[in-house]
Amino acid sequence: MFPVIVRLFPLLFGTACLFNHTENMNCPEKRSNAVPSEKIYVKGSLYPIEVGMKRLKLSKTYLCNGQEFSSFPLYDTSGPCSDPSITIDPEKGLPRIRDSWGFQREAKAGSALTQMHFARTGVITPEMEYVAIRENQQLEEWITSFSRGGVKVLPITPEFVRQEIAEGRAIIPANINHPELEPMIIGRKFRVKINANIGNSALGSSIDEEVEKAIWSCRWGADTVMDLSTGANIHQTRQWILRNSPVPIGTVPIYQALEKAGGKAEALTWELYRDTLIEQAEQGVDYFTIHAGILQEHLPFAEKRLTGIVSRGGSIMAKWCKYHKQENFLYTRFEEICEILQRYDIAVSLGDALRPGSIFDANDEAQFGELKVLGELTTVAWKYEVQVMIEGPGHVPLNKIRENMDKELEYCHEAPFYTLGPLITDIAAGYDHINSAIGGALIASYGCSMLCYVTPKEHLGLPDRNDVREGVLAHKVAAHGADIAKGDPVAWLHDELMSRARYSFAWEDQFNLSLDPEKTRTVHSQSMAASGHTEKNPEFCTMCGPDFCSMKKSKEAAEVN
Amino acid sequence: MFPVIVRLFPLLFGTACLFNHTENMNCPEKRSNAVPSEKIYVKGSLYPIEVGMKRLKLSKTYLCNGQEFSSFPLYDTSGPCSDPSITIDPEKGLPRIRDSWGFQREAKAGSALTQMHFARTGVITPEMEYVAIRENQQLEEWITSFSRGGVKVLPITPEFVRQEIAEGRAIIPANINHPELEPMIIGRKFRVKINANIGNSALGSSIDEEVEKAIWSCRWGADTVMDLSTGANIHQTRQWILRNSPVPIGTVPIYQALEKAGGKAEALTWELYRDTLIEQAEQGVDYFTIHAGILQEHLPFAEKRLTGIVSRGGSIMAKWCKYHKQENFLYTRFEEICEILQRYDIAVSLGDALRPGSIFDANDEAQFGELKVLGELTTVAWKYEVQVMIEGPGHVPLNKIRENMDKELEYCHEAPFYTLGPLITDIAAGYDHINSAIGGALIASYGCSMLCYVTPKEHLGLPDRNDVREGVLAHKVAAHGADIAKGDPVAWLHDELMSRARYSFAWEDQFNLSLDPEKTRTVHSQSMAASGHTEKNPEFCTMCGPDFCSMKKSKEAAEVN
Repeated sequence: MFPVIVRLFPLLFGTACLFNHTENMNCPEKRSNAVPSEKIYVKGSLYPIEVGMKRLKLSKTYLCNGQEFSSFPLYDTSGPCSDPSITIDPEKGLPRIRDSWGFQREAKAGSALTQMHFARTGVITPEMEYVAIRENQQLEEWITSFSRGGVKVLPITPEFVRQEIAEGRAIIPANINHPELEPMIIGRKFRVKINANIGNSALGSSIDEEVEKAIWSCRWGADTVMDLSTGANIHQTRQWILRNSPVPIGTVPIYQALEKAGGKAEALTWELYRDTLIEQAEQGVDYFTIHAGILQEHLPFAEKRLTGIVSRGGSIMAKWCKYHKQENFLYTRFEEICEILQRYDIAVSLGDALRPGSIFDANDEAQFGELKVLGELTTVAWKYEVQVMIEGPGHVPLNKIRENMDKELEYCHEAPFYTLGPLITDIAAGYDHINSAIGGALIASYGCSMLCYVTPKEHLGLPDRNDVREGVLAHKVAAHGADIAKGDPVAWLHDELMSRARYSFAWEDQFNLSLDPEKTRTVHSQSMAASGHTEKNPEFCTMCGPDFCSMKKSKEAAEVN
Repeated sequence: MFPVIVRLFPLLFGTACLFNHTENMNCPEKRSNAVPSEKIYVKGSLYPIEVGMKRLKLSKTYLCNGQEFSSFPLYDTSGPCSDPSITIDPEKGLPRIRDSWGFQREAKAGSALTQMHFARTGVITPEMEYVAIRENQQLEEWITSFSRGGVKVLPITPEFVRQEIAEGRAIIPANINHPELEPMIIGRKFRVKINANIGNSALGSSIDEEVEKAIWSCRWGADTVMDLSTGANIHQTRQWILRNSPVPIGTVPIYQALEKAGGKAEALTWELYRDTLIEQAEQGVDYFTIHAGILQEHLPFAEKRLTGIVSRGGSIMAKWCKYHKQENFLYTRFEEICEILQRYDIAVSLGDALRPGSIFDANDEAQFGELKVLGELTTVAWKYEVQVMIEGPGHVPLNKIRENMDKELEYCHEAPFYTLGPLITDIAAGYDHINSAIGGALIASYGCSMLCYVTPKEHLGLPDRNDVREGVLAHKVAAHGADIAKGDPVAWLHDELMSRARYSFAWEDQFNLSLDPEKTRTVHSQSMAASGHTEKNPEFCTMCGPDFCSMKKSKEAAEVN
């Protein structure tokens, strides 16, 4: 397989550089050293893996549940970008770390070399050990001692990861042709993950903008990135993104297939789609959204709806089915699709073509009818030892979110759920990232494994870099809030350190422990400057001023005898 | 009473105008006519009241559940500011509408002329009729026909309002000295409300900035405004805000009392506090936050906490209690306080001095111990026929939110709950408006009646006008999402119209039906312009482009035979 990638490199990267702003591709920390963190690598004991994280140096030592913390290891999605010893050259791509793990596999017809295959046969892969180390963040001692929140948990072991993957409750999307990948796991017994969608449309954006958005998404905390490009240069955009991405890349192959079919849904064929799958599989895409669950029998239900079909892939397949009066070929050819996925260890994200596009349509027959089919397809994929996750809605009122999670677990045999929102109202355009973060936090607290972000541009236009940031951060809040609700000890420690820093006016620690240190630092210093204060660690902020700081007063009160 | 206000007018408004930017005080709609809405006034049948709302003209006629809609009445918090026939002059204040309702009352010792008093004696006041009309938004026919969501409801009648107030389940904060007020109701059987905090601190902002923030808060959708000023010119700032506010104004009188006491908590006295209450009562403040529930017995619990006391008023009273080794005078003098509130019909918002300031401290003994005392105080206030609401947290994990709502209803006899957030994590500084909107949406869907907004500056500094906008809009999304979850027919109609507009590419209707028409219109037109498109009502947006629009394709699919 590797010759394929090597061959593509000169082809793509030998041409004139697309990037006029290479400096933007590196993390701001690296440039300014504003955040006192160091990049660390934790070695595996089973394989020669090195798991990258950032270790944040705290300005004080905090005592939490009897343990002292003068640093905090951050789960780090940014990859080599945050390693000061590595210079990122987008033309060369990231280091091919997985090549050196001594667990080589090659795509071969009939061979199931998937994580699920190994898990079922009792083999722990390097990827499994990698994610176990990564999820624990070197906090095994803390995790073992954690009891607050009424939840008693143990550190995650490679063996536990293996079991969850064997049972289909978690997946590690990791195409054998994506050697730059730092593996991550999606499953409800692990940290809640978020996905950022990028990709151009026919109406805007260029390759370098999209690659930049991908890199910045990881830097801000996206766990996976979906390249949803539909416009020009689909293949080339994806190649640049993959070679520069430390996180799994997902795509919706029907988009490129439609481009090849001249934009006409009725001109799509199985052969054209299959070739597109293989083209993308060879490039290294880690998971495919496949809308195989929408069937002819569902279409009358969709046509009764207020907003019909709002999934792009779903509307394409609906049109194809109606035109040809045939069943969805993604369904009828699903076993052949699984054979391809199996060879590359590509995970399938079963698309919810019939997700509700309005509150009115939520939890209807169309939606749940398709969800049942996704459950059947899950069983088929598992027969091929292909890893599966299930995509979810959409627009759903707060009080109907739980039913979505419960039915997904029931119909889809506990395969991980991956939802877009849900959005809890239809009228929040301009603020749909917040709308989505609300529903997302709730469903993740119930067990949804990954949230697909929504940006403030949703329903209005293509997001720019700042929209990506707003979307990622809104969903980081949601995902972390769900981890807290689920009693995750590492999430609790993070919040405890932040609150201890807050109560002791350790401003630098507060900035660095926040989800967006750059923003908090800037906002605080601007507020202080505007008020004429220059103290470095003032025992107040401009919100209340020195005389009305409750924390200061609360401490003073405690000191009165 | 009125002479008091008249007397203050020349004093304040006779000086040089504080506003250098009067044009900012008027709504942008009035200036640009971008939103095709007309201001309408709905007459009462019991009293000579005229309830202001905006009627949005739609570009199409939409059929919803058999009824045709070519316009939609918007619940309107902006007051006369959105009436093109009225020119707002902040120096003169708003028209004194309540003066003409023929239901005059005057502050008099020993007289209980409160909404609760009238409600209990079977009298429907003008304010009760006003809010009934306002809540229904002229959609009685729709409400009666509504069945989707499994909830069958009836239009709100003045008699229903009266019953809810008599039982203490809802309040209409309306000081007899605030004649400019357009009454609104806070209770869980009504539309969920939101509050915006404004107010300067010692470190920044001026009177005109604060008045401007107040007016803009109403324009963006705040249902009440709290003036939390602690710096210079507290009295004058409040006077300007009150005279220009169509929404209820709340304050925390202990802040001004502390200023009078030279910033020293131990120097506070009952007399100083009482005089401050009366001063603010005379000005027309509609509700007071009073931290009467924090007792000496709670302090040891608070001192064991990770973040102690994070309520400003609470930390002041804790310090006072510890210094004097006496019980909180707001508690011991509570009956005297009620006598004052009763005379002006000021509602009491029982402050949660011991709300948790970190996830770690959520739902602890300190918090719930105080909540029980708030329940006792509720009963005392009701004895004086003073309207009550209960303030709530704070920082609470998603899975512990429900317990807060359940305990509040139980301990506080179903008095309306008014929460700050809850914030579902401690680490979201810079994005705390989103953090708060998540917890807020959830608790409101469980029955919380009003959400206090949080801005992106929370934990970092004093919000500016744009932060106020972000804070208000984030909580509008939360409040509306909760209304949807509760099955409110008017909220459902709003979403249905939006989705019908979306599915028919009626862009202007989409903008106007969104929570922030100005923003959606701008974002959309910038995206279209950037992509070189000039169509006025394109059947796509730049997010997907013309070939990948799911709604367009979904309709095409439905049309294939």
